[in-house]
Amino acid sequence: MPAKSDLSAFFSPRAVAVVGVSRTPSKIGRIVFDNLTRREAARYSFKVYAVNPETPEIDGHKCYPRVSEIKDKIDLAIVAVPATAVSAVIADCAKARVKAAIILTAGFSETGNSAGERAILRAKKRMRIIGPNTMGCYDAYSGLDTIFNPRHRQARPAPGKIAFISQSGALGAAVLDWCAAERIGISKFISIGNRIDVDELELLDYISKDKNTSAIALYLEGTKHGPQLVKALKAVGKRKPVVVLKAGRTLAGARAVLSHTASLAGEPEVWQGALHQARALQAKGIEELFDATKALSEQPLPKGSRIAVVTNGGGLGVLCADEIVEQGLQLAQPARATLTKIKPTIPQYATLGNPLDLTADSTPQMYRAAIEALLADRAVDAALVVVLFQVPAVEPSIVDVIDAAQRFRKPIVVCATGGEFTAMSKRLLEKVGIPTYPSPDRAVRALAALAQRAQSRK
Amino acid sequence: MPAKSDLSAFFSPRAVAVVGVSRTPSKIGRIVFDNLTRREAARYSFKVYAVNPETPEIDGHKCYPRVSEIKDKIDLAIVAVPATAVSAVIADCAKARVKAAIILTAGFSETGNSAGERAILRAKKRMRIIGPNTMGCYDAYSGLDTIFNPRHRQARPAPGKIAFISQSGALGAAVLDWCAAERIGISKFISIGNRIDVDELELLDYISKDKNTSAIALYLEGTKHGPQLVKALKAVGKRKPVVVLKAGRTLAGARAVLSHTASLAGEPEVWQGALHQARALQAKGIEELFDATKALSEQPLPKGSRIAVVTNGGGLGVLCADEIVEQGLQLAQPARATLTKIKPTIPQYATLGNPLDLTADSTPQMYRAAIEALLADRAVDAALVVVLFQVPAVEPSIVDVIDAAQRFRKPIVVCATGGEFTAMSKRLLEKVGIPTYPSPDRAVRALAALAQRAQSRK
Repeated sequence: MPAKSDLSAFFSPRAVAVVGVSRTPSKIGRIVFDNLTRREAARYSFKVYAVNPETPEIDGHKCYPRVSEIKDKIDLAIVAVPATAVSAVIADCAKARVKAAIILTAGFSETGNSAGERAILRAKKRMRIIGPNTMGCYDAYSGLDTIFNPRHRQARPAPGKIAFISQSGALGAAVLDWCAAERIGISKFISIGNRIDVDELELLDYISKDKNTSAIALYLEGTKHGPQLVKALKAVGKRKPVVVLKAGRTLAGARAVLSHTASLAGEPEVWQGALHQARALQAKGIEELFDATKALSEQPLPKGSRIAVVTNGGGLGVLCADEIVEQGLQLAQPARATLTKIKPTIPQYATLGNPLDLTADSTPQMYRAAIEALLADRAVDAALVVVLFQVPAVEPSIVDVIDAAQRFRKPIVVCATGGEFTAMSKRLLEKVGIPTYPSPDRAVRALAALAQRAQSRK
Repeated sequence: MPAKSDLSAFFSPRAVAVVGVSRTPSKIGRIVFDNLTRREAARYSFKVYAVNPETPEIDGHKCYPRVSEIKDKIDLAIVAVPATAVSAVIADCAKARVKAAIILTAGFSETGNSAGERAILRAKKRMRIIGPNTMGCYDAYSGLDTIFNPRHRQARPAPGKIAFISQSGALGAAVLDWCAAERIGISKFISIGNRIDVDELELLDYISKDKNTSAIALYLEGTKHGPQLVKALKAVGKRKPVVVLKAGRTLAGARAVLSHTASLAGEPEVWQGALHQARALQAKGIEELFDATKALSEQPLPKGSRIAVVTNGGGLGVLCADEIVEQGLQLAQPARATLTKIKPTIPQYATLGNPLDLTADSTPQMYRAAIEALLADRAVDAALVVVLFQVPAVEPSIVDVIDAAQRFRKPIVVCATGGEFTAMSKRLLEKVGIPTYPSPDRAVRALAALAQRAQSRK
């Protein structure tokens, strides 16, 4: 890993050239160009130039024959020309002292064409390159977006605190689309592609210093640098939490990796050992990857693993208790004084214990009394608050109640199972930084990630 | 279990009396009455009468002082009067030869008032009772709906093939709301409450013969009849698949059950043994419960556990392979002849194998060639089709392609990760009976449920 790598040209360029802007609207270079020059993109600060030697103009935009003929100083070239033409484009960019290039074009080592990649490396000089065979980058803050799926098919998530690095472009794009629908905010997304230059190691290092990012989600199939990856994950982990979704964790999966990205997935056992050694958190699926990073990017770490459960639905409380035990966490045992304090404030027939079942009649005031007494108790490390929003007693002020409880600086997550009304309430909770999950198991696993991260920091 | 129990009065009554219709719109009896008499309910065939001795009329509806004074023959009474008044209402209903009553009122054995329940049992004569302390019933076909959450907070799912029996009313209602948002169709829902008369055994038997139901989801905390439950699950399982979400599967959870429904959860190990003996499928969470029943209610059972994966995103294919192995299923090994047949029809750089990665350029025609050749292969028991709808090459006709492949009578499930455009496509797929899941792990676990059900039928 270079000591001082500056990858900012990839994310916050001042001027961008899209090379290979076609007259055909469905071609990828054209999709990216249209995307960067669409009306809503006007609020972003970078300039965008089109390059196409075959036409002086496309849809009212001037086309340059090559990057080196643009008068402006280009920071980033986005390359979407046929594979055979890529190295010449890169040579021209290098001549024009372009800082960085994202090569979207496929048909290189993933299809056996390693010679093509060597030609690019010879041509690039000091330029930095992401790709080839990549979806490129998405920066929700700067507006830089090289993803070539049409926007009506794939939404882009709003600015948030989670950075997402993916070894698979298609998976990455699908997950971004899912994040947008789930209202999971993203800081930066990078599809690493064939990584002939910039790789996951350098990106992890760069992003660990990114001020917009609080947690990192990493989808990885294989690596060329096993020992360095362990070192990098350890170093990055000191600054920010990283959750890894490792594909190819079985032999069958590892074989599938080989044919997908031509990268060696490595023996599953070796990976397990390496990720354990790196103290990286692991997710087993896409939902778990973001359930965990959502909590890690918003909530403080717990001192221990003793969880208090407050609920207005007894059944969901039971499911939380089961999952807490199965995830290796503990049900907190609040002091008698804490329960005595809570008793007069909640319904008479409520169950005083952990889970604390406030019953369907519980109001936000009752939630407040219970949550605050529990979080003030030294025997409680974190709170899992179940809110069934179907019940009329739960008024909108519940959001303020849970928000106010954040002053105890102990993690709080919410489980809210339901439909549209619940989704609206979930958005309000997440706006104030309370991660909210649709089921007990997902909420508890997010708490388990917080506890595991706290453990690894010790 | 009675030999011939007829519970149809609970679900398809000809005339219903709501007892305890308050002048206050937020009271539960009134919510249920408003619900059953709202304009959109006019298409249902049952008549609805209001009972309230204190007023001759509410909101334009005549009020009867008691059920026995209604001239019509009442099949079902929905009781929402204070706990102290319930047994007198039941006695009056018995006098009027009402067939069945759903007692929504709480404050009985769950709060220590067992005497109140004994009084109801003495008063009821031959009437059948669901409750007390229940959300009651919802029948999506007949329109019968006794759930007392307001509709703007809790939606009702559309008619479908899954019946849902829940020991927790609040959890049941929250899950119905979630089902509505997820477009999971429901045939019948029953909150069993304190089950002083009709219990889960009788309901399982009744529903196993319901023509609208193809699969049963059961949320259970405890039972009063362990051995009979095993017998009932076995008997029902011969007719229809049952998936059980057992809360209290840890000791901590079992203790929480005791304080929630005052029912003994039983030793977790004993339950494990019993459910295993009953050959019941088990889910560990709400999402898994419906992921499984969705597949079981729509798809045929596989002959074995050899899965073929077809994908337009390599990364998702790898995650499927991992999960298939971890769930104890197998990656099918298609015959060489099958692959030879597929080869000329798919992109040159596609990866011929299992997973079969068609790449982002794959069209519905390529999917068709691949899926049909694989399903025709005797080495393939089921297909997992991954469709990333973000990619422009995937045209809407993909739905017809996958639908047409159902003629092979082997199970097909789809994994489609994404946002709004994907959700729209998912709805089209599910309309033709193809269960569609947001992540590889959930899709594979649904296949595992199908394989396990097939195994238990042997």
